[in-house]
Amino acid sequence: GSIVNDGCSGIDSCAHFGLVDMIIAENTCDGKKKMYEILDDFIPTYVIDLPQRPDTDIALQYFLQELESLKTELESFTGNEITSTKLLDRIKESNEIRKLLHQLYCERKRDPSPISGVDVLKIMQKQFFLSPTEFKDILKMVLEEIEHIQPEQESNTKPRIMIAGCPLSGGNTKVPKIIEERGGVIVCEESCTGTRSFWDLVDEDENKDPMLSLSQRYINIPCSCMSPNKKRLESVVDLAQEFNVDGVIYYTLQFCHGYNIEAYNVQKELKKAGIPMLSIETDYSDSDIEQLGVRIDAFMEMIS
Amino acid sequence: GSIVNDGCSGIDSCAHFGLVDMIIAENTCDGKKKMYEILDDFIPTYVIDLPQRPDTDIALQYFLQELESLKTELESFTGNEITSTKLLDRIKESNEIRKLLHQLYCERKRDPSPISGVDVLKIMQKQFFLSPTEFKDILKMVLEEIEHIQPEQESNTKPRIMIAGCPLSGGNTKVPKIIEERGGVIVCEESCTGTRSFWDLVDEDENKDPMLSLSQRYINIPCSCMSPNKKRLESVVDLAQEFNVDGVIYYTLQFCHGYNIEAYNVQKELKKAGIPMLSIETDYSDSDIEQLGVRIDAFMEMIS
Repeated sequence: GSIVNDGCSGIDSCAHFGLVDMIIAENTCDGKKKMYEILDDFIPTYVIDLPQRPDTDIALQYFLQELESLKTELESFTGNEITSTKLLDRIKESNEIRKLLHQLYCERKRDPSPISGVDVLKIMQKQFFLSPTEFKDILKMVLEEIEHIQPEQESNTKPRIMIAGCPLSGGNTKVPKIIEERGGVIVCEESCTGTRSFWDLVDEDENKDPMLSLSQRYINIPCSCMSPNKKRLESVVDLAQEFNVDGVIYYTLQFCHGYNIEAYNVQKELKKAGIPMLSIETDYSDSDIEQLGVRIDAFMEMIS
Repeated sequence: GSIVNDGCSGIDSCAHFGLVDMIIAENTCDGKKKMYEILDDFIPTYVIDLPQRPDTDIALQYFLQELESLKTELESFTGNEITSTKLLDRIKESNEIRKLLHQLYCERKRDPSPISGVDVLKIMQKQFFLSPTEFKDILKMVLEEIEHIQPEQESNTKPRIMIAGCPLSGGNTKVPKIIEERGGVIVCEESCTGTRSFWDLVDEDENKDPMLSLSQRYINIPCSCMSPNKKRLESVVDLAQEFNVDGVIYYTLQFCHGYNIEAYNVQKELKKAGIPMLSIETDYSDSDIEQLGVRIDAFMEMIS
């Protein structure tokens, strides 16, 4: 259960917290940031402060210093030294995974798409549970299989949908399922469990401090916590065009002010580009499945 | 009306926006920060980024740089140069007001208090509308009057209440009125329309950059946007003791995640100090007045 009234479902307590030794968190939104203060009573929780206007030199310096403090904390907590060499190795390994994810998403640009959005989401959710090596192996296996799929001709009549907004974390497939069970196909997710987790690579330049490369990569993620957030507005339109979608379903978890209010500007930009958008706000419960279904049906009928 | 679903009442649109030429805002909470992006379409809106872990050197540097950028923006917008001399003059003037407010709050420590909380709140709300000179004159007049008040003996049986939490901005006196109409007396407000606006002075040291003095003063405000926020926890307990309160009513506007979740830690600290707390979450509507009244009655009966 949750100790907060009318709080975001994303910060409800999770049964798996008991399995971890340390939580590394960040000041992205009000709900999460304050929840971490309480979590710290139960599990050591280290919170990184994230500047929310990311485009100045001092913001980058500030964030770099925050990551340096985290590094010191991790070294003391684990007893392992974090060297530049080791860090660069891990950066390269993560970039390899990012490139495989790019390949996976590239396959979805095919018309018809060879894989359902629900299946991709289930894969994406696994990256937060599996080790990098295991996840890489699974990705290679899936890619191998997908490349040989020749989908039935009929399926290219399905409306191509992009989901944009809040993360869809472990176990949460409610909205994607509603969309695909009612005849749509999700071909892209602009979210932290979608493109934002892999779209940009970390710089592998060996003559550069890898901590700086990490800071640059992470401070540039166009999360709705950033303000102003032109980069996200551009990215939503670019992705919608690149994946040739018929419409965007904008998904927010209830009471998530950042994504909720940003819907206004996203819709404005998509409208300019001639791409229809449906905004839905929901939580993890089953109670609104039918109601959402009716709205999503109407939207997909409109864009077909 | 509001374009955001389930958003904080504090960010609902205000009819007075049409009267201003420029809005200066800050990244304190998700709702406000995203609202400013939309407001900027209508009125030039300048948003200052505020680091949310205020205790490091780099956070101060970052915030100082943000204020420097604001200064440049203001100079270009108004055509007036902001010199250190002028700035120091204004700092001294604002400190004078802060000292008068300290005097006003000091009078409320008397038992019985010579002024009602609703009256003080109405005065506090005026500081955001009046010029510093006008506000200073009003404060002096009120203080003059209060110092000679000899309250009836019977009133010292009223429970002494502190309100802690969200700001109570212009026109909003709902909860204080409920408390005082039902027999309590509010002797202190730990909020941005209470102590936080004047408690600490800005350093007047003439050998120091006044921009640095301003940065130090403002980054140290223990708003619930800060995390971790030990300073606020200490401040709530200190104020409750200093004003000799019987109980704290913790007030949050609906969907304000920061104050809402922080209620948990505030209650924990107050409990340690043996001070009872009632947490209420409400909005600007009249619909819950009776319901809140019943809860507040029960609380005041308990602490009397």
